[in-house]
Amino acid sequence: MNTTKTINLKNRPEGKPELTDFEFTTSEIPGLLEGEVLLSTKFVSVDPYLRGRMSDAPSYIEPFKLNKPIVSGIVAEVLESKHSKFNKGNHVSGMLQWKETQVAKADSLIKVDPGKAPLSAYLGILGMTGLTAYLGLTEIGKPKKGETLLVSGAAGAVGSVVGQIGKIKGLQVLGIAGTDEKIEILKSEFGFDEGINYNTTENMSEAIAKACPEGVDVYFDNVGGEISDAVFTHINKGARIIICGQIALYNKTETPLGPRPQPIILKKSALMQGFIVGDYSSRFSEAVKQLAKWLEEDKLTYNETIIKGFDNIPEAFIGLFDGKNKGKMLVEIE
Amino acid sequence: MNTTKTINLKNRPEGKPELTDFEFTTSEIPGLLEGEVLLSTKFVSVDPYLRGRMSDAPSYIEPFKLNKPIVSGIVAEVLESKHSKFNKGNHVSGMLQWKETQVAKADSLIKVDPGKAPLSAYLGILGMTGLTAYLGLTEIGKPKKGETLLVSGAAGAVGSVVGQIGKIKGLQVLGIAGTDEKIEILKSEFGFDEGINYNTTENMSEAIAKACPEGVDVYFDNVGGEISDAVFTHINKGARIIICGQIALYNKTETPLGPRPQPIILKKSALMQGFIVGDYSSRFSEAVKQLAKWLEEDKLTYNETIIKGFDNIPEAFIGLFDGKNKGKMLVEIE
Repeated sequence: MNTTKTINLKNRPEGKPELTDFEFTTSEIPGLLEGEVLLSTKFVSVDPYLRGRMSDAPSYIEPFKLNKPIVSGIVAEVLESKHSKFNKGNHVSGMLQWKETQVAKADSLIKVDPGKAPLSAYLGILGMTGLTAYLGLTEIGKPKKGETLLVSGAAGAVGSVVGQIGKIKGLQVLGIAGTDEKIEILKSEFGFDEGINYNTTENMSEAIAKACPEGVDVYFDNVGGEISDAVFTHINKGARIIICGQIALYNKTETPLGPRPQPIILKKSALMQGFIVGDYSSRFSEAVKQLAKWLEEDKLTYNETIIKGFDNIPEAFIGLFDGKNKGKMLVEIE
Repeated sequence: MNTTKTINLKNRPEGKPELTDFEFTTSEIPGLLEGEVLLSTKFVSVDPYLRGRMSDAPSYIEPFKLNKPIVSGIVAEVLESKHSKFNKGNHVSGMLQWKETQVAKADSLIKVDPGKAPLSAYLGILGMTGLTAYLGLTEIGKPKKGETLLVSGAAGAVGSVVGQIGKIKGLQVLGIAGTDEKIEILKSEFGFDEGINYNTTENMSEAIAKACPEGVDVYFDNVGGEISDAVFTHINKGARIIICGQIALYNKTETPLGPRPQPIILKKSALMQGFIVGDYSSRFSEAVKQLAKWLEEDKLTYNETIIKGFDNIPEAFIGLFDGKNKGKMLVEIE
C-alpha cells in the first residue's frame, strides 16, 4: 500500500503556535472507492482562523483532533477518479488534509479552471478570502458612496480586497497595517487613500482622527485589540463594525481586557456584527461571479506570499502571526 | 412679573450625582406670545439617560448647560393658550424644563387624554419608555417564537415592558434584577419565566446557564458592565444584543475595562447594536397604537414609583442609581 507525508496536530498551542505543535508522519493511502478521487496537493492555504481550531475552546467550528491531520483550503490535481464529475488531470478545491496525496469524496470538491485564473487565486480572491471580503463588507457594512471605510489588517489577504471593493463603491478608504512597506503597497497597489503604520505611530487615536477627518462609517476589523479600541472613539453615528478577525487576540492565553465598547456603540447607535463566511453560503455563487468580473475588468488586484515545499507549511502558518505575509499566504507543493 | 421655582444643573457630577449638583432657583415667567402656552407641571420623568446629558463628553444628545434648567419628559396642564390646538385645561406631554410653571412653544407638545389612560402613563408605557421597549426589541432584537430573551435591568421601566412583549411574542423570558422582591414582581406581575438576583448570586455565569439552558438568543441590555460580561458567554449563534442602557457605567469616572466582547461576537456571528429611541421616530405612531391596544387588552401592565413634590426631583433622579424604583420613576407635582 502507498503512503504519503502528513502533518498532524501534535499539541494544542499555548499562545503563539510553535513548530513543535506539529508532527510530520507517514500515513497510508487507502484504495479508491466509488465516488472518490485520488488527489495530489498543489496549493495549501494557511489562515489565521486555523489557530482557533487548534484550541479546544468552544467555537463556531469544531476543534482539530490531536494526532490527526490538519485541514484547510487546498487546491489539488486529480490523479485518479471514481466519480463521473472529475477526470484525471482536473483541478479541484476543497477543505482537505495536510497530506501530499489523499483520497477524498468527490461531492465535497469544486472543479477549478487554471485557464481562467491562476490555481492559487481559487484559494484567495476567488475563494474564501474574496468571499469574506465581499460578503462581510456588503452584507454587514452596507457601504454607501462618500462614506469613510477603515480597514484593519489592511495589507492582509482579506483586508486588501475589502479596501479595493470600498474604492469600487466610491468610499474614502483608509487602512491600518504594520510596516511602512505595507502602507506603501496599500496606496500604490490597492488604491487606499491613506494608511497608518500602527508599529511606528505613537498615538493611534490621533492618527485615525487625522486620517478620517469625517469619522469612520464602516470599520472592517481583522485584528481587534488596542487598534480597535483606538478606532471606536472615532466612529460616526450609525457606524457599522464588521468583526471578521481578531488576530491580535488569537494567541492570548488569558481573557483579553480592554475598554468595553458598549457605551460608544450606544452613543453612536452603532452596529457591531460577527462575520463568518460560512453563514452566507447561499450568496457564494453570486459573489464569486462579481469578484471574477471585477478581476477580469482589472478593478481588483491581489498579492500572494507563496512559500514553497510541503515541509514548510507549519512555518508558513506561524509566520502569519508575525505579519510575514503580504496578502494571501499559500504554500505551493512542487 | 410672576416667578416660578426652577431646578438648574449646578455642577457636572463626578461619578454618582449628588444633591449639591442641583440648584433650586426662582426664575421669571415671561409673557405669553402667539403660538405659546402657559403650563403647570403635573408629572416629571426622571431617567438614567439624563446622567449622560449632565456630562460634557460628546454624546448623541447635547449636554445640559450649567446654571440652566434641566429638561426631561413632562406632562403638564395648560393654564393659558395662544395656540389654536390647545385650550385651558388640556393636558400635554413634551420635553420641558424642571419648573413648576413655564411657557413653551405649542408646536413641540403632544396633547394627551387623561380619559384614556392615567396622565403618568404618557411618560411611561405610552411614552418614551414603552416606545424604547417595543422598538428596541422588535427592530434590533427581531424576536422569534420559541427563542430565549434575557433582559437586564428587568424590573426597570423599560425592562419590565420588554419582558412582557417577549411573552406576548411567545419567547422564553428571563430577567436580571437586584432584589428578591423585584424578582418576585418580574414573575408574578410581568410574567417572566425566571429571574436572577445579581446581588445575591455568587456566580452569575452559572446562574444564567441554569436559567437559560438553551442559551440566549436576544439580550436586551439596560445595564452593561459585569452583568453583561456574564451574559455574553451564553449567547447563541446569531444572537442579537440590544444596547439600550449602560447604567452600571454611567457614573464611572474612568474608562470601564472589561473582557472585550468581540471574540464572542465573532464566534457566534452575533449582532450588537446601540438603540436610541429618537432614531426611530418614524415608527412612533404605529408603536404607540400597538402598545395602547395591548394595554387595553390587559396584555401589558406597568409599575410606577411616584415621588411627590417638586422639591424631591433631584433625590428621585439620584435614587435611580441605587435601584430605588420599581418600574418607571416619576415625580408628581401637587
